[in-house]
Amino acid sequence: MTGPRYTKLIESLPATVPFVGPEEQERRAGRPFAARLGANENGFGPSPRAIAAMAAAAGEVWKYGDSTSFELRAAIAEHHGVAVENVLVGEGIDGLLGYLCRLVIEPGDAVVTSDGAYPTFNYHVAGFGGVLHKVPYVADREDPQSLIATAAETQAKLVYIANPDNPMGTHHPREAIEAMIEAVPEGTLMVLDEAYVEFAPEGTEARIAADDPRVIRMRTFSKAHGMAGARVGYALAAPGLIAAFDKIRNHFGMCRISQEGALAALQDKTWQAYMRLLVAGARDRITTIAQENGLSALPSATNFVAIDSGQDGEFARAVLAELGARGIFVRMPFVAPQDRCIRVSVGPDAELDAFAAALPDALAAARAKLSR
Amino acid sequence: MTGPRYTKLIESLPATVPFVGPEEQERRAGRPFAARLGANENGFGPSPRAIAAMAAAAGEVWKYGDSTSFELRAAIAEHHGVAVENVLVGEGIDGLLGYLCRLVIEPGDAVVTSDGAYPTFNYHVAGFGGVLHKVPYVADREDPQSLIATAAETQAKLVYIANPDNPMGTHHPREAIEAMIEAVPEGTLMVLDEAYVEFAPEGTEARIAADDPRVIRMRTFSKAHGMAGARVGYALAAPGLIAAFDKIRNHFGMCRISQEGALAALQDKTWQAYMRLLVAGARDRITTIAQENGLSALPSATNFVAIDSGQDGEFARAVLAELGARGIFVRMPFVAPQDRCIRVSVGPDAELDAFAAALPDALAAARAKLSR
Repeated sequence: MTGPRYTKLIESLPATVPFVGPEEQERRAGRPFAARLGANENGFGPSPRAIAAMAAAAGEVWKYGDSTSFELRAAIAEHHGVAVENVLVGEGIDGLLGYLCRLVIEPGDAVVTSDGAYPTFNYHVAGFGGVLHKVPYVADREDPQSLIATAAETQAKLVYIANPDNPMGTHHPREAIEAMIEAVPEGTLMVLDEAYVEFAPEGTEARIAADDPRVIRMRTFSKAHGMAGARVGYALAAPGLIAAFDKIRNHFGMCRISQEGALAALQDKTWQAYMRLLVAGARDRITTIAQENGLSALPSATNFVAIDSGQDGEFARAVLAELGARGIFVRMPFVAPQDRCIRVSVGPDAELDAFAAALPDALAAARAKLSR
Repeated sequence: MTGPRYTKLIESLPATVPFVGPEEQERRAGRPFAARLGANENGFGPSPRAIAAMAAAAGEVWKYGDSTSFELRAAIAEHHGVAVENVLVGEGIDGLLGYLCRLVIEPGDAVVTSDGAYPTFNYHVAGFGGVLHKVPYVADREDPQSLIATAAETQAKLVYIANPDNPMGTHHPREAIEAMIEAVPEGTLMVLDEAYVEFAPEGTEARIAADDPRVIRMRTFSKAHGMAGARVGYALAAPGLIAAFDKIRNHFGMCRISQEGALAALQDKTWQAYMRLLVAGARDRITTIAQENGLSALPSATNFVAIDSGQDGEFARAVLAELGARGIFVRMPFVAPQDRCIRVSVGPDAELDAFAAALPDALAAARAKLSR
């Protein structure tokens, strides 16, 4: 008796699980975190109207969700001034990135991204046999020029950029993104991940014609709408590309409760405005906490702040470990020199209080450990 | 400016959307259905405790779900008397079938199923380039012998059987399934879809060793637990196969609210027993409605009943259309001679009342139309 015969590609993929979530870390530590500030979630939570809509939908969950997410797509289309045919709703940006990779990547195909950018995109590219070409950050920002140049050199199927960026929280003005789209090589699709754009300064969101075939935009209800656990993302693109997803997507894959919650969240403009104020306040507080500890924080266009440890990645990793030992869940960039930073997501005062209380000891312990 | 370069496989897939849900049908008709009895949903809904758990979880949905679904998997493992390592939780059986196909199917690989069995499985097989070999039903049941024989002939990567069966609602005793597992050819994985098994007579659920490498079982919270819209399915299989999904699955793909709801539903044994009584009562009522109209119904081991129209597929399709025109959403098998039937899902009395009221007129109208 043997097991199944996997594909050659599957046999070649690493067996290690790249994503260890906070619950798994809590189980390993044997206790819950005092502050959950590591996953770029939005601890202020969803609109009260969205919560009410989801609670009401719980009793109706015996019905499959609408396989076309029509009402939600119509609301999103109106919000962006595009047609319903320009909008695809899916199981978070992660789910949509997986479908997109499946649409275009055959083993050996080139894909371009930044070294240290969103790892889940890389995971999906590798999962379909794509070959990643990574360009370095420049001044803690993704570099449109080198991304485009490398896409041209490698005849890439996809070139990925997030604006604003994760993990650094930096951003480009929309003109830089618009110029990048104009320079996308023939045959390359640009993936513009705008998961955090609602938190960015006015003038960050690129102006893109709805039917532009050169780019697909990714947006989410996980960040600005505080609904990461609901798994609602959407793509904006030309109708032909949107329709192509229908060849392969899990048509009844959307949670009905999440569809209802996202619709209510999108309609609650008051909460969206309030949320931006809450997040801006929390960013300022994180920056102040950094300064009180003799550290500087990078300006953030997102719902998280990269705090510069003032030293290298080894030191930042030590700080991260010491914070974890003190019940504080935060994360950090993977690649030097960005890995000199620790990345702290926004949250309500109680969680930031816990972070503020733990940071001085964590820094002292990390310094003591590395000076030994 | 051109669009993306799709893979050759994607270019070869049909652009038509195979799945038209009830909401889409309602939009096309310009009015809601009076009775939603076509999607094998469970109109009695989830456990009140599951509803309460989901409503409570709505406020916590700012957190991503646990990427390992650990608590839910532990509860499922205990329920089935297996280890956590034997359990994978995913975005419905549909999502799990998609991942499974991706794990094993390369273009040209053979896969065996029954002609007229679950179309979403076929969709995923085709979506990865698999070649489907279909064997006929025998006496309205899937045929283990011919499935196995064809799997051996074609050296299939997968052989699929649902027990009980959709769309006919028939079932095999567990001994037939266990014998099938013993006969699975070397190098073939048997996919045992048990989406409906909780509704089946005692002695239907096969006894399978937890670590048997020849078979993967698929189960769901959509049917017996009345949570189709929550998108929670699970697989039971040998640890090596379960671990293989971690190479490709969307690790943070599960809705947190759904995870909480499924856990509460699994713990509510009282509701599960009550649900089986409700469903059995509704099956009897559908059978009675059929008899009152001079039709017979197939014995059902599921939450739906196949009513034999007494004529052929053309007539059954006419009945289906007439029912639809009267606001009754039901469906029917795709393939002769099973397509002589219409398939009616269980639901509360009000929906069955609407079906009972519409059926005589629908039959008369269909007979009149076809006699012209």
